[in-house]
Amino acid sequence: MKNNAVPAFVSPIQDFLKDLHAQCAADKDGQVATYIPELAKANPNWFGVCIVTANGAVYEVGDTRQEFTIQSISKPFVYGLALEDNGRTTTLDRVGVEPTGDAFNSISLDPGTGRPRNPMINAGAIATAGLIAGKTPASRFKRILETFSLYAGRELSLDDTVYRSESETGHRNRAIGHMLRNFDKLTGDPAPTTEIYFKQCSISVNCRDLGMMAATLANHGVNPLTGKQALRGEYVESVLSVMGTCGMYDYAGEWLYNVGIPAKSGVAGGVLAVLPGQIGIGVFSPRLDAHGNSVRGIRICQELSRRLDLHLFNRPVAGKSTIRARFSGAEFNSSHVRTKEEGQDLRELAKVIQVYQLQGHLEFATTEPVLRDVLERADEIQFLILDLKRVLSLNESAGHLLHSLVGKLHDAKKTVLFTHCEHLPLLRRMMKKKLADRFTELFSTYPDNDLALEACEEQLLEHTRHAHAPNYKAKPADYHLFQDFSDAELKVVLPLLKPRAYKPGQTIIHAGDAAREMFFLARGHVSVLLPAEERHRLATFSPGMSFGEMAFLDGVPRSANIVADTDVECDLITLEDFQTLGKNHPAIKIKMLQMLCLDLTGKLRKANRELSVFE
Amino acid sequence: MKNNAVPAFVSPIQDFLKDLHAQCAADKDGQVATYIPELAKANPNWFGVCIVTANGAVYEVGDTRQEFTIQSISKPFVYGLALEDNGRTTTLDRVGVEPTGDAFNSISLDPGTGRPRNPMINAGAIATAGLIAGKTPASRFKRILETFSLYAGRELSLDDTVYRSESETGHRNRAIGHMLRNFDKLTGDPAPTTEIYFKQCSISVNCRDLGMMAATLANHGVNPLTGKQALRGEYVESVLSVMGTCGMYDYAGEWLYNVGIPAKSGVAGGVLAVLPGQIGIGVFSPRLDAHGNSVRGIRICQELSRRLDLHLFNRPVAGKSTIRARFSGAEFNSSHVRTKEEGQDLRELAKVIQVYQLQGHLEFATTEPVLRDVLERADEIQFLILDLKRVLSLNESAGHLLHSLVGKLHDAKKTVLFTHCEHLPLLRRMMKKKLADRFTELFSTYPDNDLALEACEEQLLEHTRHAHAPNYKAKPADYHLFQDFSDAELKVVLPLLKPRAYKPGQTIIHAGDAAREMFFLARGHVSVLLPAEERHRLATFSPGMSFGEMAFLDGVPRSANIVADTDVECDLITLEDFQTLGKNHPAIKIKMLQMLCLDLTGKLRKANRELSVFE
Repeated sequence: MKNNAVPAFVSPIQDFLKDLHAQCAADKDGQVATYIPELAKANPNWFGVCIVTANGAVYEVGDTRQEFTIQSISKPFVYGLALEDNGRTTTLDRVGVEPTGDAFNSISLDPGTGRPRNPMINAGAIATAGLIAGKTPASRFKRILETFSLYAGRELSLDDTVYRSESETGHRNRAIGHMLRNFDKLTGDPAPTTEIYFKQCSISVNCRDLGMMAATLANHGVNPLTGKQALRGEYVESVLSVMGTCGMYDYAGEWLYNVGIPAKSGVAGGVLAVLPGQIGIGVFSPRLDAHGNSVRGIRICQELSRRLDLHLFNRPVAGKSTIRARFSGAEFNSSHVRTKEEGQDLRELAKVIQVYQLQGHLEFATTEPVLRDVLERADEIQFLILDLKRVLSLNESAGHLLHSLVGKLHDAKKTVLFTHCEHLPLLRRMMKKKLADRFTELFSTYPDNDLALEACEEQLLEHTRHAHAPNYKAKPADYHLFQDFSDAELKVVLPLLKPRAYKPGQTIIHAGDAAREMFFLARGHVSVLLPAEERHRLATFSPGMSFGEMAFLDGVPRSANIVADTDVECDLITLEDFQTLGKNHPAIKIKMLQMLCLDLTGKLRKANRELSVFE
Repeated sequence: MKNNAVPAFVSPIQDFLKDLHAQCAADKDGQVATYIPELAKANPNWFGVCIVTANGAVYEVGDTRQEFTIQSISKPFVYGLALEDNGRTTTLDRVGVEPTGDAFNSISLDPGTGRPRNPMINAGAIATAGLIAGKTPASRFKRILETFSLYAGRELSLDDTVYRSESETGHRNRAIGHMLRNFDKLTGDPAPTTEIYFKQCSISVNCRDLGMMAATLANHGVNPLTGKQALRGEYVESVLSVMGTCGMYDYAGEWLYNVGIPAKSGVAGGVLAVLPGQIGIGVFSPRLDAHGNSVRGIRICQELSRRLDLHLFNRPVAGKSTIRARFSGAEFNSSHVRTKEEGQDLRELAKVIQVYQLQGHLEFATTEPVLRDVLERADEIQFLILDLKRVLSLNESAGHLLHSLVGKLHDAKKTVLFTHCEHLPLLRRMMKKKLADRFTELFSTYPDNDLALEACEEQLLEHTRHAHAPNYKAKPADYHLFQDFSDAELKVVLPLLKPRAYKPGQTIIHAGDAAREMFFLARGHVSVLLPAEERHRLATFSPGMSFGEMAFLDGVPRSANIVADTDVECDLITLEDFQTLGKNHPAIKIKMLQMLCLDLTGKLRKANRELSVFE
């Protein structure tokens, strides 16, 4: 295949965007803004579209690298910075958040307080610019420019020509500045703040920047490509809220109704739209409609919303998929290999261990079904293992619910064990705070399910009749492979066994070696470990069991390391002695082979049972 | 445990709601509405809270069964019915969707057209009532009452006393009716429509009903408990949009900013809030603030939003978790058991089979990462198996993307196979429509991964050197267990074999039977099937292989059925003959047991390899 003319794999999303771009390019309605000479110079045919997912996948078509000034699209981003600098209370005191139903340049100050109705109209934006911290006007603007650059993921700059043009003609905005000063919604001389406002509008961006900035808002304020935080996550919802209700001026209600994606436009032809948690959209086309919005920009957003089903209020039902798998300790054992008797005990006892593998984002609506499911079967549960390996995020609300669950089950003398939760530091932090001095006792965590299962099994087996003393040593006659052997048969076999002893941590079998012997464990525990970076245990054996028999039987090199967990005593039999046994005492060899077959059959049945859990 | 005093497992969510209820109950601010005598009779201390998830879990505290009249909360529900009766265009022509910043009883007609600004103010609600279809005023109201009952999941009724009281005092609303008639926003006599409006406001509900009605909107218009559709899914986003921008009157911007959940309140003290896809909230407390909103209702919504992190714009990042697992055909084979040579071939060849197990809701933002991942490795993929078993829903946007992917890979001579997609009829419908006459060729579906994997493997093996002719018959000397046997050894073993023949579909081994023989397959195929309702294949064997050896070796009753897939010829050996063989020809028995050990070891290694895929 490789040498044939294989078509390049252009994403269907790219194809779709290209088609959409071509369709909308045919629309020649609208006029380039002319209120300052610099904007009038724009080529009316420029047209770029860029979609960036909250994970950072970028799709772009057309003039996406053509620079233009950000204009009013600066407003929500400066508002976010104002929130970071002042908090919500002070910011709300200076600028409201109510839609006005008025046009973008309306003054719209509250008659009583002089407070601008919202930060998306010019008056509100100028009041917002006045909230940006910094010792000098220059340092205040520098912070704005740096913040915008964090959103865009590249260094942005001021378009000085446009700025001077804005400044020369900006008398209406200067009037607004003085009016705000009159109502004490600006402090000191309003002129420097008005200049900052002119400058923020004159920052040069391209269509791809708008897509990235939108995606940064969609991704909780973190640029999905650079991983840098442009806005503290807690303020993202506030920025999106004002975009949602006030972003499209007197068109806000209809916009939310028809498009359902918070958006902001600028008179240079840019449109930026954000679907929280999903995608950011940037469009650039300088032809404007009577509202001052880009004609093609509006149309692209409408089409994307309709064709990609992006309406904010058209959300799939959450919560059905949080439980990835649920199984009991009887269906799936730890890799601690048990004796036949222990295995039989566990098949009954371990039903009280329930493992829940959770996945996705844990928030209220997705965690609630887990609590409900656990509590419905709480009577049958003694140990609850919550496997968070595939949980992508956990918010405070989910943390509270899990904390309550732990407390409630503990009060009923049940145990909750968390596995794979290192990537969710909020969980540990919340548990520590809320459990206080009961933290160590109640917040039980394990690196993986296997160790958690083993811990539960050990507790369940502790008081059963088959429990061995901790330092139990099996006599050769107790080895499982010899369990039906007569004294006469034992007399033949035992001289073939060669004793070995190992210290804790010592490697008994090395992966890659040729397999020339099979082992019988007399005392201590050994574990089979994959030779990878992280500890991955395949099995742990106890006294009486044999190990290393698979490679011994099929002649394949050792596939894993076998390591002594404790002081270990064992016996080995070599391949040569095993072959000789067949010649001299075939009946005994047949007996041993049959026992090996039995052992393998048991292991295979267990593996197949466990595979069916994941079917 | 069962006999001890185990505490009842009250959900922590119930506890949380109880605490919140108790805290807010202390708030005695606000006054019961008095504009009609009936409302003034309400006990100011009544207070109920109910949360219903979009999956139908109900949590309620306080006076949740106390009846009261729905009042303005009727407006979004009647608006939904108007959309169903008239479509968006006609409805928008009669009533706008822009927030007004005005109070609930403001007339707010557009000065030019007389169109009410939105359906949440009285003027808009009366115009909306005028859009409800029906031959008589009685039948129009009956449709409204029936629709509300579908939302609530129980039969609701009119509170006649309140209705008469509303009607007697409703002069302002009558004035609005005539004004609307003047602008042709109502047709015919406005009086019957005004009466319908009075009646819709006088429908009696309780707090739990509000929670259910909200959850129905959160669940795409389907009541999550009854499963009945109250509103066509396509109109849910429109109803929620007007609630979002206009639901809280002149408080809408601040509400979205602070609470971020579309909501509607009524003067009898009800508040209803909807978080799409997640939960519905109903609150009832008759003390109202100056805006006419329930004081405790507002507070409960604020607290729930804050404590449960419910803000609409604070969404986790989608798309990271769509791919549940991905593995190649070399890591996980079909259960068609292969010969050693075929197995070796497949370990290399089957790398070009890639299985993607998808999960959750497939929409644009969650499907995009799948496409990206597939296309990035498209060069290495020859067969793409998309397992949709855990996909909960699929929207048109995702359907388009999958269709494009199928076409693109087909053009590059690659094959896409879908498995477990019967529960997503939209996928088949869209593929049928879009692929047209290429549908049968390109939309390849299998009931499970196993059959899809097998189909791919068969194609890969077709031209390899180890392929057998379709009707190939293995001679006993070709049986794998005898592969190292000398002629002399064969001469001993072959007389022990008893030939058997089976017709397609005939059961060779019955689950539950004692295992008294092991089989050698000479011709045809046999499959191991779990004795369950649906076909669940554990393995398929080909000529030369043995089957039924596990129970033969460990003496456990047969655990599955083994059925002839084709005309089958095989040989069997009985337990007695196998035992006798050990006595008379121990060396041969040792050889057979060693071969069985080898076979079991291979199967165990394969099962362990497959288990690690799901680690």
